[in-house]
Amino acid sequence: MTSFTYAESGVSLDVAEAIVPRLAAAVRSTLTPGQPQSHGGFAGLYALPGGVTLAAATDGVGTKLELLRASGRLHDAGIDCVAMVVNDVLCTGATPAFMLDYISCGRIDPETIAELVEGVADGCRQAGCVLLGGETAEHPGVQDPDELDIAGFCVGVIAPGQALDPTACQSGDALIGLAASGPHANGFSLVRRLLAHHRLEARDEPGLLTPTTIYAAAVQRLRAAVDVRALAHITGGGIEGNLPRSLPAGLAARVALGSWPRPPAFDRIAALGVDEDELRRVFNCGIGMIAVVPGEAAVAALDTLAAGGVAGFRIGELVAGEGVQYA
Amino acid sequence: MTSFTYAESGVSLDVAEAIVPRLAAAVRSTLTPGQPQSHGGFAGLYALPGGVTLAAATDGVGTKLELLRASGRLHDAGIDCVAMVVNDVLCTGATPAFMLDYISCGRIDPETIAELVEGVADGCRQAGCVLLGGETAEHPGVQDPDELDIAGFCVGVIAPGQALDPTACQSGDALIGLAASGPHANGFSLVRRLLAHHRLEARDEPGLLTPTTIYAAAVQRLRAAVDVRALAHITGGGIEGNLPRSLPAGLAARVALGSWPRPPAFDRIAALGVDEDELRRVFNCGIGMIAVVPGEAAVAALDTLAAGGVAGFRIGELVAGEGVQYA
Repeated sequence: MTSFTYAESGVSLDVAEAIVPRLAAAVRSTLTPGQPQSHGGFAGLYALPGGVTLAAATDGVGTKLELLRASGRLHDAGIDCVAMVVNDVLCTGATPAFMLDYISCGRIDPETIAELVEGVADGCRQAGCVLLGGETAEHPGVQDPDELDIAGFCVGVIAPGQALDPTACQSGDALIGLAASGPHANGFSLVRRLLAHHRLEARDEPGLLTPTTIYAAAVQRLRAAVDVRALAHITGGGIEGNLPRSLPAGLAARVALGSWPRPPAFDRIAALGVDEDELRRVFNCGIGMIAVVPGEAAVAALDTLAAGGVAGFRIGELVAGEGVQYA
Repeated sequence: MTSFTYAESGVSLDVAEAIVPRLAAAVRSTLTPGQPQSHGGFAGLYALPGGVTLAAATDGVGTKLELLRASGRLHDAGIDCVAMVVNDVLCTGATPAFMLDYISCGRIDPETIAELVEGVADGCRQAGCVLLGGETAEHPGVQDPDELDIAGFCVGVIAPGQALDPTACQSGDALIGLAASGPHANGFSLVRRLLAHHRLEARDEPGLLTPTTIYAAAVQRLRAAVDVRALAHITGGGIEGNLPRSLPAGLAARVALGSWPRPPAFDRIAALGVDEDELRRVFNCGIGMIAVVPGEAAVAALDTLAAGGVAGFRIGELVAGEGVQYA
């Protein structure tokens, strides 16, 4: 049977990696005195006078937008847009404060724009952040009339003492996985390839297009209850591509495969022709956010999540080493 | 001779206006206690505890990006992207603090992305803001391989007492116009239509593609020297579409046409088939930012701008009434 990969689907991560040093130099050239160096984390940090730090991130919904639109679910695309950036901002220790959206299209269809923005507002209410504004850009003759894209921008506020500091992580800390609602908004260029190959419609695939879980409330409850030492938003790249971004040098994540229930949508993706290694490299496979907590706090963390209606799983622990080790 | 308008070029401003109430309701639904209502200004406001307010805006470069790319000037598109949002943020009284960029494309061309981001960094240095991060999104099968878009997000900080309050404006106040470098990044769907009709290349048109002026330093100097009561970023919609956004009810702007030198690029656009009324409704016509200052401070304002290398002009005054009156 044909096996598909993300790279074959037209997403050139390696090409993108090649210019990272040049982009990093551009970013460094703009640093002003007193500002933290970028730490390769999930969001950029900006220190205000007086001890408050802002965290900011931007992201889009990728090619999932096409499937949502074809399924009459533009509202959900707005929620996805909020979720992708809010979850990034949470990983710094910030409380999401406000969002802006940017929509581009070839020709403005009022109903399309309104549904998208109402979805963004829905996501903002879930995340407890204010929708401060946005831009709808019409690009006639550049984008096709029915073309559409959406990006979100979120700023969070880190009160003094609330920043997450990866250096607090220790060997023996527990990895608490927070359930994902499905593939969230990553890996959809590969999903679209699979659907096209098998002549399937996304709307017929249960759980494939579920909006990305917004973890703002769950993280707030968790941090109020236990010592959360690090958070990692599991997006494109899967656990191995994202969890190490929140860990200090010298600590590896030992993740027990099978320690959480994999949503059926991932079994379906695998069955359509993606091998297990590629599946783990591209998708969250059912864990959308990972919290690092002291080993002795793991049970309290799981109880807290359950009480708030979010399924949590103890999926592994930190050990000496680097990267992610699957066991 | 054929006369062209912005609406004919495929930009449906009236259609977009039709959904504004629905978008406004979505935005209102996300308001949290203690946050200012949106005031229809140039940027959204978010009040932090302790008296500091943040201002945030998002915008793109529109279809000027196509002309810049065809002219080998992607770096300038990055500057434009910064300028469009920084100038909006300035109108609240904020000092620009940081930027993020969002680039979407069908296929990542490393050189293209690097040139754009280096241009964004250049603009950030001009504006004194930190480039905190960004996202480059590849959308194979959704965007054409050579398609490209860029949007910017900027956050500024308004220190206590620094917010611009339009209600401070008074009849008799002077309108100080700050020179634009050209059409900036507005009206380019119409420009592209004109160029195509006359089979012209943008690169052959002097002053057409000059990067948008970043007014951060000029505004800082101006505010240090005189009582600036309002600022308006003159973008799509021209003076009549933008200046009233910064004025209180009951005050009109009387603008003396001919009181500033119009850059030759606008004469050229007119000559290619845009009548004077349409030109003023779509383009800045040479004034990229307007500052409202007390009448007696006008000379000091012009002197301050000149000392900083920015051409300024006394282009009119505030009178009782509404909107913009050309004289």
